[in-house]
Amino acid sequence: MKILTVDGLQQLISRVGIDAFFDLTRDRLEQDFGRWHHFQKSPRHAVHYPYGVIELMPCADDEFYAFKYVNGHPYNTQQGRLCVIGLGLLADAKSGYPLLFSEMTLLTAIRTAAVAALGAKYLARADCQHLAVIGNGAQSEFQVTMLRRQLPLTTVSFFDPDGRAMEKFANNLGSADLSLKACDSIQDAVSGADLIVTATAAKQANDLIEPKWLAPGVHIHAMGGDCPGKTELGQRLLGQSKIVVEYLPQSLLEGEMQNMAPDNLYGELWQLVDGSLPGRENDTEITLFDSVGFALEDYSILRLVLELLESVDYGDLCLTQPMVPPLADPKNLYGLLSG
Amino acid sequence: MKILTVDGLQQLISRVGIDAFFDLTRDRLEQDFGRWHHFQKSPRHAVHYPYGVIELMPCADDEFYAFKYVNGHPYNTQQGRLCVIGLGLLADAKSGYPLLFSEMTLLTAIRTAAVAALGAKYLARADCQHLAVIGNGAQSEFQVTMLRRQLPLTTVSFFDPDGRAMEKFANNLGSADLSLKACDSIQDAVSGADLIVTATAAKQANDLIEPKWLAPGVHIHAMGGDCPGKTELGQRLLGQSKIVVEYLPQSLLEGEMQNMAPDNLYGELWQLVDGSLPGRENDTEITLFDSVGFALEDYSILRLVLELLESVDYGDLCLTQPMVPPLADPKNLYGLLSG
Repeated sequence: MKILTVDGLQQLISRVGIDAFFDLTRDRLEQDFGRWHHFQKSPRHAVHYPYGVIELMPCADDEFYAFKYVNGHPYNTQQGRLCVIGLGLLADAKSGYPLLFSEMTLLTAIRTAAVAALGAKYLARADCQHLAVIGNGAQSEFQVTMLRRQLPLTTVSFFDPDGRAMEKFANNLGSADLSLKACDSIQDAVSGADLIVTATAAKQANDLIEPKWLAPGVHIHAMGGDCPGKTELGQRLLGQSKIVVEYLPQSLLEGEMQNMAPDNLYGELWQLVDGSLPGRENDTEITLFDSVGFALEDYSILRLVLELLESVDYGDLCLTQPMVPPLADPKNLYGLLSG
Repeated sequence: MKILTVDGLQQLISRVGIDAFFDLTRDRLEQDFGRWHHFQKSPRHAVHYPYGVIELMPCADDEFYAFKYVNGHPYNTQQGRLCVIGLGLLADAKSGYPLLFSEMTLLTAIRTAAVAALGAKYLARADCQHLAVIGNGAQSEFQVTMLRRQLPLTTVSFFDPDGRAMEKFANNLGSADLSLKACDSIQDAVSGADLIVTATAAKQANDLIEPKWLAPGVHIHAMGGDCPGKTELGQRLLGQSKIVVEYLPQSLLEGEMQNMAPDNLYGELWQLVDGSLPGRENDTEITLFDSVGFALEDYSILRLVLELLESVDYGDLCLTQPMVPPLADPKNLYGLLSG
């Protein structure tokens, strides 16, 4: 089976080009959300610890079975480690044989930003220029880079209680042709924004944004609420918003929807993608994509990566290792020991 | 993280010694079943296809999180492929960082045989000499090799509808100091047996053994029933047996227990191991270990393998690959793309 390391993926993205890789990812997500009923879906399987969570996220259609191993350990950064690490596997559904084992820390950041762009395509005003980013951790620049491929952004205001995170954010986006505004508070950052991304890490119920701070017609991409008890927005704001999720059974457990009755939901993303529900309907409504991350997104990007690695252009970027016994007689597994 | 290929594991087992590796595995399983309440447990997550099943089997304590990817595609052998393939991952629970990704096809066969030996320790008569093996597929010789480390076996009778599987079985065990008896039927094979292993692959409800064929005091290790609708034994035999399972919530979905009310259960294996329930109580009762394979067994063998690979003697047998980004600033994931 193929194994793609972090180094291999960095080279792959560099060769394909960041922008092209991001566009391919978003397009693949859109295609797959558009054929929602082809997939076997379930909420992720989570094991909770006092210090974090470890999850398995499977998603499959009749051709491929994918899953991701992913953790969330908010205190890891204090020891210089990542909060979120991912590893993914893609297998042939018809035989169960594994095809690809890949790093998914970077792939998770990319697909998470891609789903933000997809949501914004259907829910944000097409003329959005001012993006506010609340929380400037590992995910934040991916969001900006992906969203500006979807929308004509000119200004990014940003806030994080960690000043060093804000510095890093500004450095990483310094060469982008964007006006960057470091802010002293959330209120300052969201003031006048057309589009707001909340990407915070605190594992508790927060109420980050007061409705009165918001301009009419704003779209909020709330992606930091992603496990039980971890939410970013209060009921007043939720009650005034047109709320879309990826997959309701999971969002009721993990997303902002934890704080709302299910009948406050407008719809699931696939309904906007396949045209069965309209997205944004006017320039003044407040829209909210309560995005917790769904296993279909991992399926999509793993298939994309496998296809790239199977092409002559990029086949040299992965390892090939014998992770499955190659047997002349498939019933003679014991021969591996005695032979 | 460490990656252990099939070749690496073959070398590891060869260097440790098959018998020693098998004993270490069984002892590790016994230790872990003996501290049952330390683990977070759940039935496996299964995706079912007309042609097979793909499963994720997680199990964790406060130190380690383990899971296995495993499939069951009974028609694979017709294309010269294995029915069952496994891959496993072990991670540090406190940080979520992965430690080991390993082949688990061979490890699954070994831990599956180890749990048979553990069940037999508590449920079979200590003087068992005659073992019958029904189904001579990939798992069968592992069962024999492991069980004879637990019991004074002298005779193995065996039957499989596939004559080539029987030949392979006889060849693999030909050099063992055992009297091997190829049989023409299940009835012939189980006649006079002290211990019976059923390890068949057909994905349906079977009734392989009539109670009147059995000698008093026999122990049956039923391991082929391991998914919904796939069972090996009929209600009459089950009704006469003292039934033990690994983990009832999973066995009710997948094991012989599918055909019985839960109150027919005698107990779970851990209760025998920690002494809270007696195992076999006399020389005439029929005991039945309805073993479907539980994620704790994968946890145990993955920890054993990691410990071996961390020792100086075997550290050269695995690969070390960068599957997690090594970041100077853990919030600067984006730096991997722009750097």
